[in-house]
Amino acid sequence: MQVSVQREKLSSAVSHVSKAVSSRTTIPILTGIKIKADEEGLTLTASDSDVSIEVLIPLEEADEWGVTVHQPGSVVLTARIFSEIVRKLPGNEIHMQVDDRLVTHIRSGQAEFTINGMNADEFPQLPQLEEEKVFSVPSDLLKAMIRQTGFAVSTSEMRPILTGIMWTLEKGELKFVATDSHRLASRTAMVECMEELSFHNVVVPGKSCSELVKILDDDQTLVDIVVAANQILVKSNHILFYSRLLEGTYPDTTRIIPQSNKTEIVVNTKDFLQSIERASLLSREGKTNVVRLATLPDGNVEITSNAPEIGRVTETVKPSSMVGEDLKISFNAKYMMDALRSIDSAEIRTSFSGPMSPFVMRPTDHDWMLHLILPVRTY
Amino acid sequence: MQVSVQREKLSSAVSHVSKAVSSRTTIPILTGIKIKADEEGLTLTASDSDVSIEVLIPLEEADEWGVTVHQPGSVVLTARIFSEIVRKLPGNEIHMQVDDRLVTHIRSGQAEFTINGMNADEFPQLPQLEEEKVFSVPSDLLKAMIRQTGFAVSTSEMRPILTGIMWTLEKGELKFVATDSHRLASRTAMVECMEELSFHNVVVPGKSCSELVKILDDDQTLVDIVVAANQILVKSNHILFYSRLLEGTYPDTTRIIPQSNKTEIVVNTKDFLQSIERASLLSREGKTNVVRLATLPDGNVEITSNAPEIGRVTETVKPSSMVGEDLKISFNAKYMMDALRSIDSAEIRTSFSGPMSPFVMRPTDHDWMLHLILPVRTY
Repeated sequence: MQVSVQREKLSSAVSHVSKAVSSRTTIPILTGIKIKADEEGLTLTASDSDVSIEVLIPLEEADEWGVTVHQPGSVVLTARIFSEIVRKLPGNEIHMQVDDRLVTHIRSGQAEFTINGMNADEFPQLPQLEEEKVFSVPSDLLKAMIRQTGFAVSTSEMRPILTGIMWTLEKGELKFVATDSHRLASRTAMVECMEELSFHNVVVPGKSCSELVKILDDDQTLVDIVVAANQILVKSNHILFYSRLLEGTYPDTTRIIPQSNKTEIVVNTKDFLQSIERASLLSREGKTNVVRLATLPDGNVEITSNAPEIGRVTETVKPSSMVGEDLKISFNAKYMMDALRSIDSAEIRTSFSGPMSPFVMRPTDHDWMLHLILPVRTY
Repeated sequence: MQVSVQREKLSSAVSHVSKAVSSRTTIPILTGIKIKADEEGLTLTASDSDVSIEVLIPLEEADEWGVTVHQPGSVVLTARIFSEIVRKLPGNEIHMQVDDRLVTHIRSGQAEFTINGMNADEFPQLPQLEEEKVFSVPSDLLKAMIRQTGFAVSTSEMRPILTGIMWTLEKGELKFVATDSHRLASRTAMVECMEELSFHNVVVPGKSCSELVKILDDDQTLVDIVVAANQILVKSNHILFYSRLLEGTYPDTTRIIPQSNKTEIVVNTKDFLQSIERASLLSREGKTNVVRLATLPDGNVEITSNAPEIGRVTETVKPSSMVGEDLKISFNAKYMMDALRSIDSAEIRTSFSGPMSPFVMRPTDHDWMLHLILPVRTY
C-alpha cells in the first residue's frame, strides 16, 4: 500500500473511527484502525463488540483533493499511536507506505515515523445488512432525539434491555423511549420513509447512541438509517456507523402513563429548572437528592429541600396557570433536572394524579415529547 | 450581621478565597469561609495550612455599589455549599442575615436559604507581617515568572526545599529559580523597590505559586509584595494572598551552570518543540521518555526516538546556526518540552558541553531566562 492523503481529512477520519476503538480489549487487532486503499479512496475502520465505524476519504470531494492511491493495499495500525501521530504531523500532506513485512512509513514535512503494522485480513468483517428497512432523518433531529431520551436509560445491568433506547417506527412516526423504571423519556418525530415501513422493539444500546451523537453533524443533512435483525446502520456523509441491538423484549411503557390528572401546573421551564437546581444543592448534601413541591394557597408553587445540620432552602415559583387539587409531592431532583434540561420549549405543563402516582411533564407548544417521573414517598 | 451585596462581586470574592480552602482538613472551621461586615465593606477569608486569602468587597468602588452593611458582624459558612449557593442564586442582589444562633438567611429573588453558620472567633487569625521588605511588580509579569519556572519544582518530598520556587532580590533584580535536580529553570526581571532592598533564600511553595497565578489579573496593575521571616504577602487590588515559606536552605545553583560550551545550536523554538513532541509520542510508549539529538554532517539536527515492538521516529530540524563539535546526546523529552513551552521567544540558543554534561537553553533575544537540563546516558 502506498498513498498520499490530505492531513486534515485523515485526522478527522481517525478521530471519527477512534470512537469505536475499545480501550480495553483482549483482542490485539481491535486496538487498531484498519486502513485500506483502493480505487474509491482511503477507508478507515474500527470496531469493538458493540459499535463499528467506517469512514471513507474519497479521492476527491467537491473539487478538493483527498487521497492519491499510488498502490492499493491495507494494514492495521494501533489506534492510539496512529491518531496521535496524525494529529501532530506537520505539513498538509501525509505519505504512507507499507512494506511486505507490514512495516509502515508515515512521512510528512521533516518528520518520518516507522510503525509496525498488523495484518488487515485478521480484522473482523463488518456485518452485511439487508437494506430492506431504510428511512431518513435530518442529522440534527436524530441528535436531539437521542439527547432528549438517552439520559433516562438504565445504567444497571440488572435488566440489560433497559440500558438501551427503544426505537419504533409506524406510519412515518419515529419514536424513541428510554426508562430506568424510575423515570421515562419519550420523543417522537415524523420522518421520511416508505409508507408501509414499520418496526418495533429495536433497542439500541445507550452507549452506542452517545457515540453516534458525537459523529453526527449539527445540520439538517439527511442521514439514512438501516434497521436489520440484530444491527442498525446509520449512514451520514462518508461515515458508516454500525451498532448491535440489545436482545430481549422491551417492556410495554404505554400503560404506565397516567391518563387522568388531579393537579395541573404550567410553569416557565428555565425558572423551574433553576429553582430545582438550587434546592438540590442541599438535598445533594443531605445525600437523599429529594426535593419537595407543594402548591400554596396564594397560587404559587413552593420547592423545598433540607440537609440535616447544614440547613434548608425554600424556593417560590410563580406558575402561569395552576388548576385542580392541592398537592404535596416529593421527587428525585436529578431526574427532574435531567428532564427539564432536555426540554427546549419555554413552558411546560406538569400533570399530577396524586402524591403517590407518577407525574407527567410535556412542553406546552408541542406533543413530541413526554417525561414521566415516579415520586418519592416522604410526606 | 445583616448585609446586602452585589451578587457578581460576592461570587468573584468567593471564587478567589475558595482557592485557600482545604478540601481535606481535620479542622472543621477551615472548611469554611469567614465573612465579616464592617465599615469598610464585606471581607471574606479562607485559610489552609499553607495559604490564606482575604478579599474585601468595598461599600462602593469606581462609583459602583458593592455592599450595604445594615448591621456589622461575622460568621463562618461551609465553603462548598456557600459558593454553590452564591453561584446559583437568581437576582443581582443578595441579602444575608445572621441571627444569634449563627443561623444565616441568604435571600435573593424567590430563593431563600437557611444555613447553619460557625463562630467567626474560632477562625484562625491571619499573620501580622512587618512591612519592611516591600516591592512592586506588574501582575502579568509575576504570573509569567511563576509560569516560566514553576514547572521545574520537585514533586518529591525527599528534599522538601526543592518543592518551592526560590525568590531572591538584589539591586532591583528579582530572580526566580526552580529545580528538581534533573532540570532547572530561572527567570529574572527588574522591579520597583527601594535601592538597598535585598533578600535571599525566600522559598515559596510551588503549590502556593500555582494558586497565586489563578488569582492574579492578566494586566500590568502593580501588585505589592511583602517578604517577612516565614511568610510572603501579595497584595493585588482588594485581595491579600498569604503563603508560608519553606524552611531550610536552598542549594546554591549558580555553580552547576556550565560556563564553557563545545557545541552551540540556534533553532526556532516552535519547530524544535513540535519535533520533540512528535518524537516523544514513541518514547512515551516505550516508557523511557528519552529522545536523542544528533548533529548531522549536512548541518541539520536529527531528533530520534523509538519504542520496541511499536516503531521509531526520525525528525530533521534545520538550525539557523550550529557551531562547535559534533554531538550525540539523549535527554528526557518531558523536561525539554516543559522548558520550550515556557519560552515566548521565537529562537533559542542551546549550549552543550559534551554528551554527559548538563546543557543550557536561553532565548536569543534576552538574558532574563535560562533552562538547564541534565542529559540521560544512552549513547
